[in-house]
Amino acid sequence: MTAIEILRKKRDGHALTAPEINFIIEAYASGQVPDYQMSALLMAVFLNGMTTEEMGVLTQAMMHSGDLVDLTDIPGRKIDKHSTGGVGDKTSLILAPIAAAAGVKVPMISGRGLGHTGGTLDKLESIPGFRVDLSVEQFRRGVEEIGLCLIGQTQRLVPADRKLYALRDVTATVESIPLIVASIMSKKLAEGIDGLVLDVKAGRGAFMTTIQQAEELANALVATGRSMGKDVVALITAMDQPLGYNVGNALEVAESIATLRGEGPEDLTLLSVELAAEMIHLARQASDLPAARRLARRQIENGRALDVFRTCITFQGGDARVVDEPGRLPRAQHMACLPAGRGGYVTAIDAAAVGMASLLLGGGRLRKEDPVDPAVGIVLQVKEGVPVTAGQALAEIHYNDESKKGEAWRCLEDAFRISERAVTSSPLLRSRIHG
Amino acid sequence: MTAIEILRKKRDGHALTAPEINFIIEAYASGQVPDYQMSALLMAVFLNGMTTEEMGVLTQAMMHSGDLVDLTDIPGRKIDKHSTGGVGDKTSLILAPIAAAAGVKVPMISGRGLGHTGGTLDKLESIPGFRVDLSVEQFRRGVEEIGLCLIGQTQRLVPADRKLYALRDVTATVESIPLIVASIMSKKLAEGIDGLVLDVKAGRGAFMTTIQQAEELANALVATGRSMGKDVVALITAMDQPLGYNVGNALEVAESIATLRGEGPEDLTLLSVELAAEMIHLARQASDLPAARRLARRQIENGRALDVFRTCITFQGGDARVVDEPGRLPRAQHMACLPAGRGGYVTAIDAAAVGMASLLLGGGRLRKEDPVDPAVGIVLQVKEGVPVTAGQALAEIHYNDESKKGEAWRCLEDAFRISERAVTSSPLLRSRIHG
Repeated sequence: MTAIEILRKKRDGHALTAPEINFIIEAYASGQVPDYQMSALLMAVFLNGMTTEEMGVLTQAMMHSGDLVDLTDIPGRKIDKHSTGGVGDKTSLILAPIAAAAGVKVPMISGRGLGHTGGTLDKLESIPGFRVDLSVEQFRRGVEEIGLCLIGQTQRLVPADRKLYALRDVTATVESIPLIVASIMSKKLAEGIDGLVLDVKAGRGAFMTTIQQAEELANALVATGRSMGKDVVALITAMDQPLGYNVGNALEVAESIATLRGEGPEDLTLLSVELAAEMIHLARQASDLPAARRLARRQIENGRALDVFRTCITFQGGDARVVDEPGRLPRAQHMACLPAGRGGYVTAIDAAAVGMASLLLGGGRLRKEDPVDPAVGIVLQVKEGVPVTAGQALAEIHYNDESKKGEAWRCLEDAFRISERAVTSSPLLRSRIHG
Repeated sequence: MTAIEILRKKRDGHALTAPEINFIIEAYASGQVPDYQMSALLMAVFLNGMTTEEMGVLTQAMMHSGDLVDLTDIPGRKIDKHSTGGVGDKTSLILAPIAAAAGVKVPMISGRGLGHTGGTLDKLESIPGFRVDLSVEQFRRGVEEIGLCLIGQTQRLVPADRKLYALRDVTATVESIPLIVASIMSKKLAEGIDGLVLDVKAGRGAFMTTIQQAEELANALVATGRSMGKDVVALITAMDQPLGYNVGNALEVAESIATLRGEGPEDLTLLSVELAAEMIHLARQASDLPAARRLARRQIENGRALDVFRTCITFQGGDARVVDEPGRLPRAQHMACLPAGRGGYVTAIDAAAVGMASLLLGGGRLRKEDPVDPAVGIVLQVKEGVPVTAGQALAEIHYNDESKKGEAWRCLEDAFRISERAVTSSPLLRSRIHG
C-alpha cells in the first residue's frame, strides 16, 4: 500500500478501505507521508467526499493517533457538548454546570477562538487564575468529584488532528464535511464520553450559512458517532445575530453567570437549557426530554448550577468570587456607544460582523498564536426585531486601545440593519437530528 | 493575492486569471509557495480542469520560469516534434534527419524514458560517444549548420516544469490534461520553435488508452499552441502493439538506421514519413501534404537523410560508423527466443507489456535516477495479424543479466495473444487535428 495508490483511488472517486485510511493517517502522523501528499489527498476528499463508513474509519484512525482518556471507572454516563462555533455563544459555561448539577458527568475538552468565533478556553481564562491546562489525572478527578471539568486539548490527544488541521488551514480544505466530522468526532470521542450533544449553527455568523448545509453536517456527525457506538444528538440552531447580548471573553463570562442566576437573556437561556436537557436525557437522568428540560431549569432556579460553577472555578485555580462580584472580572478602560443612524426596526445584526468587531478590539485572534485581550468586546443594547429611535444606543464598544476602536466601530456599524418595517426573525431552534 | 485564495477559487470550479496563474507559478518556482499548497492546487486542477485560456497562461508562465532559446537569427522555420510516448517509438531518430534533409530546422530537446516507454536521449546515448548535454550555443550551431540537433533538457530551461513534474509524480496528478499540456508545450515553446508536430498516442501502450482521451489531449495541445501564435498539428496514432520490431535502446537505433536506409518496417516507416511530412509542411518546404510526403520519402531514397544523421552523430561526438556498421552498437551477451505456445493468429501484442519486459531487462527505468543498459531489449519476430505455428519464435530477448531474464520472459509471454481467427488491427494513423 502506498500513498499514491490511495491518492489515485480517492482522486477517481472511489471509497477508501479501512486499512487504506488507517495506513495513511498513521503514516502522516508519524511523518512518513509528507505534507504535499496529504494536502493532495485532502483536496481530493474535499472534492470527491467520503462515505459514512469512510468518515467513521477516519475518525477512529485519528482518535487512535494519540492517547485516549479512559473514564470508564467513573460512575455515571459521560456526556459532552460540541458547538460548531458562533458569536456570543457561551452556552458551554452555562450548560456544563446545569448538566453536572443534574447528575451528568461532563468531561469537556474545548478549543480557543479563531476568526470571528470565540472559544470556551479564552472565556474561562478571563476568570482570574483559571487554568485550562490541567493534567489528565486532575481532569478525571474534576469530572468525578464535581461532575465537570473544562480543559484544553493536550499535546498527546489526537495529534493527527492538530497536524491535519494546520495543513487544511493553508490548503483551502477546511470546509469539507468528512474532514470536519473526523476532526470534531475524533477529539470528542478521545475524551472517553458515552454521548455527545452537538449544536450545529446555521446562518450569517456560522461556518455553515444555510440550514441545508448545517443539516448535512449534523447528519454526518450523528451517523459517525452512532457508527462508533455513541449516543449522539444534534440541534440545528440559528446563528444570524449573536447569542445573548455580550461578545468578548470576560463580558461573556459575566453574561453566563447572570444566566446561571436566572437573569440571562431569553435566547441564551433557551438554548443553554435545551442543550443541557439533551445532555441530561442522553445521560438517562430524565425519562424524556420534557422532564429533562424541567430538571435543567430547576438547576438554575435552585442555585445548584451556580454552586457547581463556583466549585469548578475553585477546582481549576480560579477566583470563584467573580460569580458574586462580576466586577472582579477584567474590565476594559474605555466604553463608547454606537448610536442608531435612523429610527425603525432592527431587522438584522450580523453576528460575523459583531464577532469581527470584537476581534479587531483584541478580543479574538486571526492566527492561533495571537494573544487575546480578555476585557474588550461588544455589548449589544438591542436584539433583532426591536424598534429603535435615531440616536438610541445599539451597542457598547468596550476597548483598551484607542487605535483599535475606529476599525471595530466601522465593522460594528455595518452589522446593523434598520428598516421601516419589522421582519420576523427565524426561530433559534431549527431542527433536531437523533441517530 | 495569496495561494489560499487561488486554491479556493480553483477548488470551487472557477477559472483562474492570468495574474493569479503567473503569481502562483512564480511563487512556486522561487520557493515562496510550498509543495503542500501546490499539490492541493494540482489536485484541484486535476478534478476541476482548466479552460483553454488558463492552459495558455499556465504554459506561458511555466515557459518564462527559466531561459528561452532564441533561434530567430537562424534562417528558416524551426519545427520540432513531440510524442506522448510509446513502446518501440524511435520515430524522432528517423524523422529529424528526414526533415532536416528536406530543409527544415529541427531544434529537438528530448527526454529520457520512464516506466515502460522509452526516451530519445537514452536511445541516442547507446551510440558510442554520443553526447546529449551540449551547450545552448552548440545546440544553435547544430541546428543552423546541420539542420538538426538533439539534446536534453538543460537546468535553466523551464525549471518550473521540473519542480512541478516531480510533485505531480508523487501526488497522483500526472494524468491531467491541463497539466500535461502546460508541461509539454512550455518545454517545446521554450526551444524557440515556429511550429510543432504532435504524435498523440492512443492504446494499450499509451498514456491515453482511448482515442477519445487522445483527441481531447490533442485538441488542448493544438489550441494552446495556437493561442501562443505557433503552428501546431497533431496526429492521433495507435499504440497497441510496439512500433516496428525492436524495443530497447541500441536495438532501436539499429532499426532507425535501417529505416533511414529504406529497409525499415512498414508501420515505422509510414509513421516517420507522415510526421516528417507534417514538419516539412509546417516549415513551408512543400506546398501541400502530398508533396511533403513525396519530399520526405525522397530523402530516404536518395540517402540524404542518412547522410544528415551521420553528420549529426559526428557533430554530437558519436561514432558515425555505427550507421554503416551496426555491429559497433552495444550488443547484449545473451539471446533467448520466446516460442509461440500454440498455433493461430497473433491478435494482440501488448505494447505496455513488451515495454515492461525491456525495462525489466535493464533497458528502461522505474525511477528517474536509475541507469539503463543500452544493449538489452526485445526484438519482435511477428506483428499483429500474422499467422504463427506452435513453437515458432514470437520474440527474441536480448539480455546481459541471467537473473533478470525470468521476470522479463513472463512479462513478454503475457504480451502475446494468439487466437484461432485473425482479427483486423486498428489502423496506425487515426486522425489529424490542425488548429
